[in-house]
Amino acid sequence: MNDTIFGKNSVLEALETNDRNINKVIISNNIHTDGKISKIKELCQKQGIVFQFLPKENFTQYSQYNHQGVIAHISPIKYLDLEEFLSKEHNNSSVVMLDGVEDAHNLGAIIRTCVCAGVEAVIIPSRRNIQVNSTVEKTSAGAINHIQIIKVNSPISALQQMQKNNWWVIAAEANAKDNYYDINYTDMNYVLVMGAEHAGVSQSIIKLSDFQVKIPMMNNFNSLNVSNALSAIIFESVRQKNIKKDK
Amino acid sequence: MNDTIFGKNSVLEALETNDRNINKVIISNNIHTDGKISKIKELCQKQGIVFQFLPKENFTQYSQYNHQGVIAHISPIKYLDLEEFLSKEHNNSSVVMLDGVEDAHNLGAIIRTCVCAGVEAVIIPSRRNIQVNSTVEKTSAGAINHIQIIKVNSPISALQQMQKNNWWVIAAEANAKDNYYDINYTDMNYVLVMGAEHAGVSQSIIKLSDFQVKIPMMNNFNSLNVSNALSAIIFESVRQKNIKKDK
Repeated sequence: MNDTIFGKNSVLEALETNDRNINKVIISNNIHTDGKISKIKELCQKQGIVFQFLPKENFTQYSQYNHQGVIAHISPIKYLDLEEFLSKEHNNSSVVMLDGVEDAHNLGAIIRTCVCAGVEAVIIPSRRNIQVNSTVEKTSAGAINHIQIIKVNSPISALQQMQKNNWWVIAAEANAKDNYYDINYTDMNYVLVMGAEHAGVSQSIIKLSDFQVKIPMMNNFNSLNVSNALSAIIFESVRQKNIKKDK
Repeated sequence: MNDTIFGKNSVLEALETNDRNINKVIISNNIHTDGKISKIKELCQKQGIVFQFLPKENFTQYSQYNHQGVIAHISPIKYLDLEEFLSKEHNNSSVVMLDGVEDAHNLGAIIRTCVCAGVEAVIIPSRRNIQVNSTVEKTSAGAINHIQIIKVNSPISALQQMQKNNWWVIAAEANAKDNYYDINYTDMNYVLVMGAEHAGVSQSIIKLSDFQVKIPMMNNFNSLNVSNALSAIIFESVRQKNIKKDK
């Protein structure tokens, strides 16, 4: 239970230290809303942390802990703010954003691939996407300590903000016209958005994106694991950058 | 327990039908060697199936089954013989051989990647490598039915036999001089050998290989998951072939 903080006081204390490492706060919807609960809600809103009111059935797995109907899921790492990331200088940099990736092992493998390929940061949405937990930390094989993880509440706003800062948005999309190797990655800062394996990248993100790229499928069988799809695309950008450098 | 056959008669029957779907036979080393046991050993040797004598402690997890000290681990698919595969015509084909990959999820992801990239077959050694089981089948997301899986007892002999048949052997090797994108994949049949994540490809295979290729690491952090490493290399060959075709 390294990933979990139980009880009003402990959760409140974690929020007050504002260590940017809380994934989510869940509150039982049959507990009395007192001053501490109000304060917890207030701090969550202020810090952009997801909080949910859930039926008490969701707390039965924690019955051996004195949780008082309040639980915080925490991350083994600190998340970085997008603003802070964008305020630094970036030169021909790459970032990966995930959109609806729910498997912890996939996130671990993605983080390893990103570190090996020199990606500067991974952006994860605070909703409908796996957060960094101890399984992700373990499956990343130490890579999590070599990269910045940015958590955002609205992927759309985050991408728009990046576009304003001269970042280009590339969406991986099975029906795209361009293959992933048709794009020139060597002369821009870009954020590559990878979607869930079945749903793909959300339509709203595809609309906003500057490029859409597909991986050509050789067998009429389109079921590449998201970390493997990412690997093909991101190492193509490494290839292009290295070849340019060697010239 | 879909993956397991229990008892002398059932195992013998499975061997006699010779369906090429047995991963391994294990025999308790404290049972009496009777005619059936001798026949089981004989058929295993004839069909190149690994059999092991193990202490009875290895059978306690199966105590609810009437195993009589004899168990066969079976595969949900039939393996193909290398001879049969090589006897067919191949033109600019690719095959992936694994060397010491032990994780079932990795094998599932590798099979998916191979199918998407048009790889014709995956070769797995019968020892010190995960075999196809129900976990592999499940994590392959159906891909296992779209590709041939070849099992070999000696990876070295298999590669030599392929070389005699005009296949080129490419070993993925972290210390290689060439990057994976320095090789021209468009004009040969090749078998790409991927090693275990920590040990890499065996020295004896590297010695025999025609090319060694590395994936350049951008962060002095060399810990790419084997399926992600494969994805980067194999889709580079897809890129090269598609570009050549389009010219």
